[in-house]
Amino acid sequence: MTSLIDLEPNVIADEGLAELGEKRLAWTRANMPLLAALLREFAATRPLAGRRIGMCLHIEQKTGVLIEVLRAGGAEMVMTGSPATTDDAVAAFIARDPGVRVYARNVDTMEGHERHIDRVLASEPDILLDNGADLIAGTVRDSAHRVVAATEETTSGANRLRSELEGVVPFPVIVINDSPLKMLIENVYGVGPTVVEGFMRATNCLVATNVFAVIGYGACGRGIARSLRAAGATVLVVEIDPIRALEAAFDGMRVMARQPALAAASVVITVTGTPRVIGRDQVPHLRDGVMLANAGHFGYEIDRAALAEAAVAVEPVTALIDEYRLADGRRIRVLGRAEMLNLTAATGNQIPVMDLGFALQAHSLRALSVDPAGYPAGPQPVPASINRRIGVDLLGTLASVDFRREEDYA
Amino acid sequence: MTSLIDLEPNVIADEGLAELGEKRLAWTRANMPLLAALLREFAATRPLAGRRIGMCLHIEQKTGVLIEVLRAGGAEMVMTGSPATTDDAVAAFIARDPGVRVYARNVDTMEGHERHIDRVLASEPDILLDNGADLIAGTVRDSAHRVVAATEETTSGANRLRSELEGVVPFPVIVINDSPLKMLIENVYGVGPTVVEGFMRATNCLVATNVFAVIGYGACGRGIARSLRAAGATVLVVEIDPIRALEAAFDGMRVMARQPALAAASVVITVTGTPRVIGRDQVPHLRDGVMLANAGHFGYEIDRAALAEAAVAVEPVTALIDEYRLADGRRIRVLGRAEMLNLTAATGNQIPVMDLGFALQAHSLRALSVDPAGYPAGPQPVPASINRRIGVDLLGTLASVDFRREEDYA
Amino acid sequence: MTSLIDLEPNVIADEGLAELGEKRLAWTRANMPLLAALLREFAATRPLAGRRIGMCLHIEQKTGVLIEVLRAGGAEMVMTGSPATTDDAVAAFIARDPGVRVYARNVDTMEGHERHIDRVLASEPDILLDNGADLIAGTVRDSAHRVVAATEETTSGANRLRSELEGVVPFPVIVINDSPLKMLIENVYGVGPTVVEGFMRATNCLVATNVFAVIGYGACGRGIARSLRAAGATVLVVEIDPIRALEAAFDGMRVMARQPALAAASVVITVTGTPRVIGRDQVPHLRDGVMLANAGHFGYEIDRAALAEAAVAVEPVTALIDEYRLADGRRIRVLGRAEMLNLTAATGNQIPVMDLGFALQAHSLRALSVDPAGYPAGPQPVPASINRRIGVDLLGTLASVDFRREEDYA
Amino acid sequence: MTSLIDLEPNVIADEGLAELGEKRLAWTRANMPLLAALLREFAATRPLAGRRIGMCLHIEQKTGVLIEVLRAGGAEMVMTGSPATTDDAVAAFIARDPGVRVYARNVDTMEGHERHIDRVLASEPDILLDNGADLIAGTVRDSAHRVVAATEETTSGANRLRSELEGVVPFPVIVINDSPLKMLIENVYGVGPTVVEGFMRATNCLVATNVFAVIGYGACGRGIARSLRAAGATVLVVEIDPIRALEAAFDGMRVMARQPALAAASVVITVTGTPRVIGRDQVPHLRDGVMLANAGHFGYEIDRAALAEAAVAVEPVTALIDEYRLADGRRIRVLGRAEMLNLTAATGNQIPVMDLGFALQAHSLRALSVDPAGYPAGPQPVPASINRRIGVDLLGTLASVDFRREEDYA
Repeated sequence: MTSLIDLEPNVIADEGLAELGEKRLAWTRANMPLLAALLREFAATRPLAGRRIGMCLHIEQKTGVLIEVLRAGGAEMVMTGSPATTDDAVAAFIARDPGVRVYARNVDTMEGHERHIDRVLASEPDILLDNGADLIAGTVRDSAHRVVAATEETTSGANRLRSELEGVVPFPVIVINDSPLKMLIENVYGVGPTVVEGFMRATNCLVATNVFAVIGYGACGRGIARSLRAAGATVLVVEIDPIRALEAAFDGMRVMARQPALAAASVVITVTGTPRVIGRDQVPHLRDGVMLANAGHFGYEIDRAALAEAAVAVEPVTALIDEYRLADGRRIRVLGRAEMLNLTAATGNQIPVMDLGFALQAHSLRALSVDPAGYPAGPQPVPASINRRIGVDLLGTLASVDFRREEDYA
Repeated sequence: MTSLIDLEPNVIADEGLAELGEKRLAWTRANMPLLAALLREFAATRPLAGRRIGMCLHIEQKTGVLIEVLRAGGAEMVMTGSPATTDDAVAAFIARDPGVRVYARNVDTMEGHERHIDRVLASEPDILLDNGADLIAGTVRDSAHRVVAATEETTSGANRLRSELEGVVPFPVIVINDSPLKMLIENVYGVGPTVVEGFMRATNCLVATNVFAVIGYGACGRGIARSLRAAGATVLVVEIDPIRALEAAFDGMRVMARQPALAAASVVITVTGTPRVIGRDQVPHLRDGVMLANAGHFGYEIDRAALAEAAVAVEPVTALIDEYRLADGRRIRVLGRAEMLNLTAATGNQIPVMDLGFALQAHSLRALSVDPAGYPAGPQPVPASINRRIGVDLLGTLASVDFRREEDYA
Repeated sequence: MTSLIDLEPNVIADEGLAELGEKRLAWTRANMPLLAALLREFAATRPLAGRRIGMCLHIEQKTGVLIEVLRAGGAEMVMTGSPATTDDAVAAFIARDPGVRVYARNVDTMEGHERHIDRVLASEPDILLDNGADLIAGTVRDSAHRVVAATEETTSGANRLRSELEGVVPFPVIVINDSPLKMLIENVYGVGPTVVEGFMRATNCLVATNVFAVIGYGACGRGIARSLRAAGATVLVVEIDPIRALEAAFDGMRVMARQPALAAASVVITVTGTPRVIGRDQVPHLRDGVMLANAGHFGYEIDRAALAEAAVAVEPVTALIDEYRLADGRRIRVLGRAEMLNLTAATGNQIPVMDLGFALQAHSLRALSVDPAGYPAGPQPVPASINRRIGVDLLGTLASVDFRREEDYA
Repeated sequence: MTSLIDLEPNVIADEGLAELGEKRLAWTRANMPLLAALLREFAATRPLAGRRIGMCLHIEQKTGVLIEVLRAGGAEMVMTGSPATTDDAVAAFIARDPGVRVYARNVDTMEGHERHIDRVLASEPDILLDNGADLIAGTVRDSAHRVVAATEETTSGANRLRSELEGVVPFPVIVINDSPLKMLIENVYGVGPTVVEGFMRATNCLVATNVFAVIGYGACGRGIARSLRAAGATVLVVEIDPIRALEAAFDGMRVMARQPALAAASVVITVTGTPRVIGRDQVPHLRDGVMLANAGHFGYEIDRAALAEAAVAVEPVTALIDEYRLADGRRIRVLGRAEMLNLTAATGNQIPVMDLGFALQAHSLRALSVDPAGYPAGPQPVPASINRRIGVDLLGTLASVDFRREEDYA
């Protein structure tokens, strides 16, 4: 394994931002008690000693705390982020650590990003922390790689592992996002309230007295709809799965077909995972003044191109709101360019929710590092024992919970 | 197949109650739109023509409507109920129908009930509608039976089919209670609010300002806890599964260990499926004046014998409340003899919830009658197509839903 | 003052019911901590010693506990109730006390009731506990009366005191129902949830998924609407006062005009204080199968005569539901004969709510007994110091409250 | 009356910001339908023609729209704002209008502000739109003033009118903030949700699972507490008025004394109107890591000086969070420097709530302009007819309301 100092030097935006980055981490760190406890544990037991982790993950405040934990565990780290989501100040602060190489700048293009991926792989990591399976796919093309285990953060990465990469990955890959714990907490209680926060921040309008159409009643949709209703909104739900639709109805939502829901809504939020939920055919049904927002992973749920085509004018009314004026005089407002509203208009999931997700990462990486042979090759869920352990740990950090440790149950 | 008229005559409490039974069915029937639609459909298509259904199911108002549907479909029916739950008036009304034999009286003993089971099996049914797998178990002992298919209502019946009866049942058995649709609606939205109703009816006390400990946060516990919190109660949740406990915490409940929860609660509701959740060891922690109720299937969650042992006096304060006075002066009140509170103190699940469950029965029986060979032998879930169809139908009956038919989704 | 033994003997339905009456009081007494504390206090200080209280109040379980308190305070009592609301068993139990005379039977006619009023006045009471101002009005006609002070329970009694009886009552009358404390707790938190309980008991139908029109958004309407919405209902509110209507809208209700609300509702609840809210002109707009209920003081909000006129048939479907079939086939269901649903189909306000109301009575009677000259003649509100004291006391009895005594505030 | 062109020229920060100011107004204007309707009406009827309005009010986006309405009504306007709250871009945009004089810069000192007040008074206005009664107080010192009527926005201004200025103001002053409509909507539904938004924005932490102590259960406290509980928080309420405390308890809050509430809370929000609710004596009871925020009008509810005194170190962890480290190691975090959290960390009340408040202003100014002699001298509430009219108008603008006009009620 090449020594870190022989690798290409850091590629970051501005070393001078390091102090700012350090500052930004303070509040985040203070609210990640699971990672804080792991840091102490890792520092004492050094479960990653001798490992080099190749990482591809959004580099921002919360990730910064995860990196500190993994470093405390003894790993060297070589990393890249994702274009546009890199916090250059955090990257600069992390890059100060001599046990780390960072290749990530906010301005990176897609090509730049691919070169960074190559740089990470060229460092000959033996463990991967991946996001979208780009690093893992790279190992398939390189028979000389040294990787013995990996984690994959996302569902879309897991999908690649189960389709194009099926059967060709010779090492275990724990898929973090498959954890039922993470799904429940992130989707229902993370996305739900923060999308409502995003709506409030973007518009300075009322939640109560507005009529929201929430399109899609999966875990995220349920979280959003319940948060809205609890805040006094009237909520219309559009959902094609009848069991989910029934759940919506019994939860107090009005279940409707898409067209009448659009005709009645003053705000529409899509969260289906499907492209063009609001597209050319839906434009005629929209009310004048309607606000459209998306909370699904991809912005394509709202077809902005179709809106633009139908419009006689498009113009930004605020940094977060674009207004499409139609020939018949109606005005359609799109919030946050139809990207995930809790990211564009708020700060994403709450810090403790990320603490949970990254504790799953750290625990999984430790388990894989200590006994890579103990896990079968290919994608697999987070071990049940880790889910359970972190569930109990998380309970112990919540102010409203008096159930501190499992032994307390008596 | 012996003619019905050659079977033993009806064994019912009092023929004279028939008119009262007819009256009781009216309101129930008026609120079971799924069964009403099936009745019309069955009357037109006669999918059960030529069949004889042997049935074992609680005979009361809601069941009465199901029987009308199956009769309209062309089946003869020979039936028994369960001791103590038989509504003699409904039994008398049903028994008027010459296409039916009824062997069920409210006063029946367990032995009497077993004789009724034998009577049903002696009628040589070819389809069974079972509740606890007693009829199905009977066919195993009788090689000459003619049964080609069955449904089983309960989870405990399903458990028998998967243990003692595993591999020995040569015909398909659709297990109604495994339907995710039924589970969700019955447990969360049926049991939840009706347990709270039962508390109000039994006690005439406030929900708001009381401190409830809900022990168990499965589907029923969740339904109860959410109904209580929505009504203004403070809700403490005791739950050993950490993921469920987290869900409780994020839903706004205070998660606690059992002992401190009991020490803080003014009302305790058990719903765990486990015996002696409140037993000898818990008595010292209970507050003076605490009310104890159970919403789990079996009354054993609250160990009344242990309470009686600890008490210096036990006496009924109302028909639904027994007071246990302890030597130290504390008074413990047990509601509804610790049987399911929504049955002892209220009217059980809401009629539309039963409409859903019985529509699953009628659809499944139709499918099995039309093509018994189309289903594998042994226990199996309700076919997905039936769940979906009934889900859509149920949506169409709800006042708050504008999504009438699947084709409407556009 | 004539000795009690020289008065007409008790006029009650059946002395033999006394034991049953005693039993009925037990649970009620156990849940009235304010009265329990007052009983101990009154027994020690005897603030009513030498007084004879003439009382006219519904004689049932909760009143029974109030009478025990007043008796413990040293008063003799001569009482009548109201026709139809008298609990004969409670009356029999109370009548056992030699310090009491009871003139009340459930079967009494209006004339019988008037004779009882005369009997109470003939006993020469010096303090009155009135309900509708009938006793007080009687003193006006009798210049020889000995009354020095009174309380009046109801708003309608207070209205008489401020109109026909204005200026002619020479003694102080504390009007209990004017207490802001009683108004808030009884209307919003007493009536609200118990009306919903009544709906559940009368119908065994779902609250969630139903569309309720609540007509009137005063304190009671607000309590009902919020309870319904919290239980998952869709709630339409009809309210002509714009500020109340805005409150409804911001609380998450859909505010509508009466006609479209009726056209959309599956259940209608009137609570306006106005006659014929649902009358001849509204019948055409009602949905087939709609349920109509009233929660206002008088049953006249739903014009049953107009319904009957519009119907081709009227028949009871259950003891609590009458069905009106219209010529066009629609069926209108009226719950509980349009009388207050929480009384007809449930047990009225929760016991602790009545504890509050009767504590106001007992405190007021004590204050008047000790210093009748300290209060001006005519109707007046409960003194602020009593409201405050009882508010603090009530807080101290609630399980969810840790604020025991005022001195604790630090 | 001196011509506007003879007055001192505008005193604003930067004329070049006008375009930006115009842009900022767009979204605000689009969400103020009451003012939009009034603008059309005022433009047609010119009820302020010939008037010169002297104004002192925060100059920011929402005020900008009000100014447009008053200008459309025909008034000339001479105005100042408040130091620190002036939006210089909006000021520049407004100043472009030749019918307006603006004396306001964000950087103004208190002395600068007083000079602006003098400039406004020197313009010889005949109507005042005041905020804190500074302009009105100025007229008392100037016997030559021409003022015939005024409005006062705030309660503290009203207090001055009822104390130091009592009896000395010879013209009518309508106090906008006394409107029950404005109180209800702004405090409960404006402040409540936006304070919760501010908490989310400032901290990126969870609402659910946190334990909030809300100190004060007036209209604002109720709005905050209900919003928190609806979002899944555990809410402790500290309130010395027993009736309000009971309301909190019945609303599902845990009512506690201050000290135990502070000992249990992970977040504390003060909203009492009283200084030093969290002061020296409370510091010992605070939990490590607690967050303190204020939602009352003045920041003095949290005694930051006392905190600083008790601390060994104070440092900002983010722009909105200061951390006080105590000698015993505990860390206290103060959000938004203890100023109103919905202003420091969010965007203040929602635009439609300000629309309501400013519609009250515009209506009141019109009424006073048309008939100043029709109103008595001195402070007085908004006329009931205006409250009612605006209530109905506001209803008509809400998406969830179908009750468009009063005539619809049938």
